[in-house]
Amino acid sequence: MAVKIPHRLYLSEDEMPKKWYNMRADMKNLPDPLLNPATLEPVKTEDLYPVFCEKLAQQEMDEKTRYFEIPEDIQEFYRMFRPSPLIRAYNLEKALGTPARIYYKYEGNNTSGSHKLNSAIAQAYYAKEQGLAGLTTETGAGQWGTALAEACSYYKLPLTVFMVKVSYEQKPFRKTVMQTFGADILASPSNTTNVGRMILEKNPDTTGSLGCAISEAIEKAVSTQGYRYVLGSVLSQVLLHQSIIGLESKLAMEKLDEYPDIIIGCAGGGSNLGGLIAPFMQDKLTGKANPQIIAVEPASCPSFTRGKYAYDFCDTGKVTPLAKMYTLGSSFIPSANHAGGLRYHGMSPILSKLYHDGYMDAVAVEQTKVFDAAIFFAKEETILPAPESAHAIRAAIDEAIKCRETGEAKTILFGLTGTGYFDMTAYGAYLNGTMTDYIPTDEDLQKGFDELPKV
Amino acid sequence: MAVKIPHRLYLSEDEMPKKWYNMRADMKNLPDPLLNPATLEPVKTEDLYPVFCEKLAQQEMDEKTRYFEIPEDIQEFYRMFRPSPLIRAYNLEKALGTPARIYYKYEGNNTSGSHKLNSAIAQAYYAKEQGLAGLTTETGAGQWGTALAEACSYYKLPLTVFMVKVSYEQKPFRKTVMQTFGADILASPSNTTNVGRMILEKNPDTTGSLGCAISEAIEKAVSTQGYRYVLGSVLSQVLLHQSIIGLESKLAMEKLDEYPDIIIGCAGGGSNLGGLIAPFMQDKLTGKANPQIIAVEPASCPSFTRGKYAYDFCDTGKVTPLAKMYTLGSSFIPSANHAGGLRYHGMSPILSKLYHDGYMDAVAVEQTKVFDAAIFFAKEETILPAPESAHAIRAAIDEAIKCRETGEAKTILFGLTGTGYFDMTAYGAYLNGTMTDYIPTDEDLQKGFDELPKV
Repeated sequence: MAVKIPHRLYLSEDEMPKKWYNMRADMKNLPDPLLNPATLEPVKTEDLYPVFCEKLAQQEMDEKTRYFEIPEDIQEFYRMFRPSPLIRAYNLEKALGTPARIYYKYEGNNTSGSHKLNSAIAQAYYAKEQGLAGLTTETGAGQWGTALAEACSYYKLPLTVFMVKVSYEQKPFRKTVMQTFGADILASPSNTTNVGRMILEKNPDTTGSLGCAISEAIEKAVSTQGYRYVLGSVLSQVLLHQSIIGLESKLAMEKLDEYPDIIIGCAGGGSNLGGLIAPFMQDKLTGKANPQIIAVEPASCPSFTRGKYAYDFCDTGKVTPLAKMYTLGSSFIPSANHAGGLRYHGMSPILSKLYHDGYMDAVAVEQTKVFDAAIFFAKEETILPAPESAHAIRAAIDEAIKCRETGEAKTILFGLTGTGYFDMTAYGAYLNGTMTDYIPTDEDLQKGFDELPKV
Repeated sequence: MAVKIPHRLYLSEDEMPKKWYNMRADMKNLPDPLLNPATLEPVKTEDLYPVFCEKLAQQEMDEKTRYFEIPEDIQEFYRMFRPSPLIRAYNLEKALGTPARIYYKYEGNNTSGSHKLNSAIAQAYYAKEQGLAGLTTETGAGQWGTALAEACSYYKLPLTVFMVKVSYEQKPFRKTVMQTFGADILASPSNTTNVGRMILEKNPDTTGSLGCAISEAIEKAVSTQGYRYVLGSVLSQVLLHQSIIGLESKLAMEKLDEYPDIIIGCAGGGSNLGGLIAPFMQDKLTGKANPQIIAVEPASCPSFTRGKYAYDFCDTGKVTPLAKMYTLGSSFIPSANHAGGLRYHGMSPILSKLYHDGYMDAVAVEQTKVFDAAIFFAKEETILPAPESAHAIRAAIDEAIKCRETGEAKTILFGLTGTGYFDMTAYGAYLNGTMTDYIPTDEDLQKGFDELPKV
């Protein structure tokens, strides 16, 4: 290697990408269209306007535009925390005794503590531009809600966040952070929406789910004058905004004369994974390169590895369009012992299609093994990872160990999406030995599959 | 200005300073020596060896060596989180409508969440080099304990942390972070030491103090084979290690053709303030420049602004040498309503001397006004500051407002020492209106002064 590789490579402000990249423009086989659940006809862009802000609806439906200019105002906000560093995991490599070169793109160095801010600020910007009165959203582990609270505070937009009840209870401090940025927080299911009341009536003790919080947030948005709904993952617009992660990563690696053999990202709804892999997937789609791409999901919520590729609702209340995706069924709720995010029943339709067509692999990992990796990593690299991010760490360590066994000096890139400061209850459970694993049985999963809409 | 000023300036790894700077080498009037409390004779370096590791004791006593080489191993660790960014507060300036140019040196982008890691890794390194069996320390708000836990984990050194009881109770998650890095945590006063038991007997309901935790940590160190005690602030060795903050800041500002008119740092024991101002103070001491330097302390623990410049014990148990410093008396305990750090009764002897000799100013600010500033800052700059850091923000905002009034375009540099993720209880209290201010009466303070040793 002629190039000296620093521990942390920061691109300069001028090098920050000025366009987002839309993977669909290079996909020969596009994701199946969103369907209106009543008519089963493909959804048109205008159909989304009552729910989404218009520019975002257009981005959602645009399969042709390869690059979208990042508005200057969003770039200006990005400069408060971007470009984010590409870090060479020298200590981790040494501790593993691996010939692999391990890099990670670290998105945790901002107050939201994760990559979610990349899309949050874009969505708040377009909402402000349209003159909206406010926004609603849901949050699971709380990273998205925090990011959107920051973004809405910046644009002085009122925000209501439906927070999955189990997180609301486990993470009171997450709530306070969002409140610090001026957001209203409700535990979901709540009794402030029809769908929330309906779900509570059916199952009063439910710990909530992202799917349920989505239903509530949508209901609140469409029933409040001038409000729209925004979502931090799954959607194609979110993957578009998150492409900045991958674009920066690729540019930084080029400066180091590096190209990843393996790219690893954790996958819940796909926001980080889709963003990280975007320009590398472009290389695969256009035949320029063929890196291995690995999605890592929790064994407790295994959409890719054990889900069905089928049309399904994006929410529990069945108010959204139908999306063709890997899904566990919209009624699926991960076991309450599952810590952190990555708890969504479905998966980005773009990533689902790419996985279905063989462009990427997926693995499911158990929670205690994820925390083994998290703590090992924290001690070597001194960053305390979010449980979500630790899924990618687990897989990266496993790949690096394979390299040790085969002697191959592969270049591994993984996404370190965020920090674990608000996940100390889970860390504590791991440390005191009370953390358990949960793997749904085939029977458990069948219940969700049985409810899939017949399309 | 010919130079384009980015939002965040990161020096390259190669530009990171390779030496620490010792202010004492340029002080015409040195701090008064540490005294043995029994003999009232100046302490000799060797006298400190039973308590401190030898290299650190030598750094503590060395008033002549201007620059200390940073060992390569420490530099290697620094590269995991340094150089830290110098940030131009464009949004804050705009929101204040001030002609001032505001910069902050941000030390929160590492898992310890503060600047404390700069000295923690140095102290752990020298302890390892000496072949010690383990370390003890105390922590108030928890930043130092977290930093040292990370550093000790890196060098595989056992660590016991005495955590001030009020923090131990208010911040259970701080404890878990330290445990994640393998440290043992005890609430102080504890019943594991003689001094702890004595203090508990006198005052069973005490919420603890740094002074008391120091006594316990020292007792545990000197009574355990191969152990030594380390401290994260106050000491001259700590200011030495922290000089990297100021050295980087000055270098970064030079690259921008800037030099601060005002430098602002929060002050508890002085670790951040002493580090931030070090090279600028050198300019003052050598007549090269004359920036204004402002120490900001809590009105609830006002060592500089209302303390006595006198010899005092560094701890509550009166086991340490006597130091000449601004002090509220070693028995002083800040009101339990005081959130966060900056709760030490004394102040760095170096900074005390410089303040006494007129090289710097000090202001005391009330807690609710500090949180006003913290939340204003968070919304504009999207970084959630630690309460400690928010003291500096408060003063920086006040100075920027003065500039708005006078029309002066001053250049302000302040230290943003850390993040507030573990301070959400305090943020919550502020948000729900239950946060109160506390200013000790002269009578309150007199009690502490009455107990000062007669030297």
